[in-house]
Amino acid sequence: MRLDVFMTPAEAIPAEVAGRTVVVIDVLRASSSIVEAMASGARTIFPVTSIEEAIRLANTLGRDEVLLCGERRRLTIEGFDLGNSPGEFTPERVAGKTLVMTTTNGTASMAAAAGAARVIVGALLNLDAVVEELVRTGAHPVFLCSAREGRFGLDDAVTAGRMIGALVEALPDVEWTMNDGARAALALGRACDGDAAALFAQTAAGRQLADVGLEADLAFCAQVNLRDVVPVLQDRSITLNGSA
Amino acid sequence: MRLDVFMTPAEAIPAEVAGRTVVVIDVLRASSSIVEAMASGARTIFPVTSIEEAIRLANTLGRDEVLLCGERRRLTIEGFDLGNSPGEFTPERVAGKTLVMTTTNGTASMAAAAGAARVIVGALLNLDAVVEELVRTGAHPVFLCSAREGRFGLDDAVTAGRMIGALVEALPDVEWTMNDGARAALALGRACDGDAAALFAQTAAGRQLADVGLEADLAFCAQVNLRDVVPVLQDRSITLNGSA
Repeated sequence: MRLDVFMTPAEAIPAEVAGRTVVVIDVLRASSSIVEAMASGARTIFPVTSIEEAIRLANTLGRDEVLLCGERRRLTIEGFDLGNSPGEFTPERVAGKTLVMTTTNGTASMAAAAGAARVIVGALLNLDAVVEELVRTGAHPVFLCSAREGRFGLDDAVTAGRMIGALVEALPDVEWTMNDGARAALALGRACDGDAAALFAQTAAGRQLADVGLEADLAFCAQVNLRDVVPVLQDRSITLNGSA
Repeated sequence: MRLDVFMTPAEAIPAEVAGRTVVVIDVLRASSSIVEAMASGARTIFPVTSIEEAIRLANTLGRDEVLLCGERRRLTIEGFDLGNSPGEFTPERVAGKTLVMTTTNGTASMAAAAGAARVIVGALLNLDAVVEELVRTGAHPVFLCSAREGRFGLDDAVTAGRMIGALVEALPDVEWTMNDGARAALALGRACDGDAAALFAQTAAGRQLADVGLEADLAFCAQVNLRDVVPVLQDRSITLNGSA
């Protein structure tokens, strides 16, 4: 069975994504926030690339009907309802709501997954749920790391690697054909199997968050298997079962 | 001291390369071939991007005065004297000669190193020589992995990681500030510290070489510290002491 990891969205050649199940990972913080929002009962999340597009879509849907969320340079966007800290997405705030979200790296990697048969959102928070979904569907998965402005990010690579480790363990009889990224991620997941918060603190993404006082997000995103949800991106929106 | 690894040439932002010592790595096979050519007594190597540029330069220098070397799709270019197998660069063939070389990935990463204070060529073949040079000059080094057509390559990442491991060991009192790529490479170098030929055989680059009958190159490039030379790229040409 094929198993590929792309370390940056730019590596994800459409022909190798087409028809496959893609796990989009932006553990610090977009995919963690999406998992948290869906676990808290959000109805739908529309991930969009630009602030302008977010505002336009919010106006189309009815500004009072949606929550605008996202960040630029780690901070909440002026006029938006929520930022990109997973802890903000509580049931009190998001249950039953439609969210429009724009983040620096996470939404770009979702765009790179266009053409996939199925796009799911993965984080440490829902690691086992993602792995169970991949086992259930027998997919030849692609793990797409969002990275930081096109550069390798250790946080996403280790998250992908831990998922692969769990997947390989869950399917001991499968012969895997892995690309270089998958082999590297698997090795990194095994090498960095301790406290993810400590690892995150040493990454570029983690340091940038700490610089603006968002250290608490690192500990939140480092929690493993807190949530049993698999957000599915389909037809430009994220829901829990893939039908908006 | 800063220490960065860029997993692909596209990650190497000019501002972070400027003024630093860059170690260009394309272990399968351009940097291994360059090390071997210089160890065999080649006078100068001109790395160029295109076949046309190689032929034009050869004609300018005098076609009979130079050896044209390089590959496209792993194979020797028609009309060229040598391919890109390190074993081809014997003293009998290259001693005292000027070489013009074009390879798919290696010469592209050298172009990405433009603006560096010093560009040296690293491979497993000259691992300790590169590390000694970095220790001697007290550089804040950048390791630039050539990768495969812009995608992460495990062969180059592990080579960079083994160099970093040796460098860190040689300078135990230095406090290193590493980017995500450097941390990952170091972990991968430690995780993959066995026979490099077996590792290479599982990489995309290694499989492509095996597909065209060049398995022997993997074993050649996997040899550690066979050569005690540090090729230096300066003013568009590679020599042993940086002055053509």
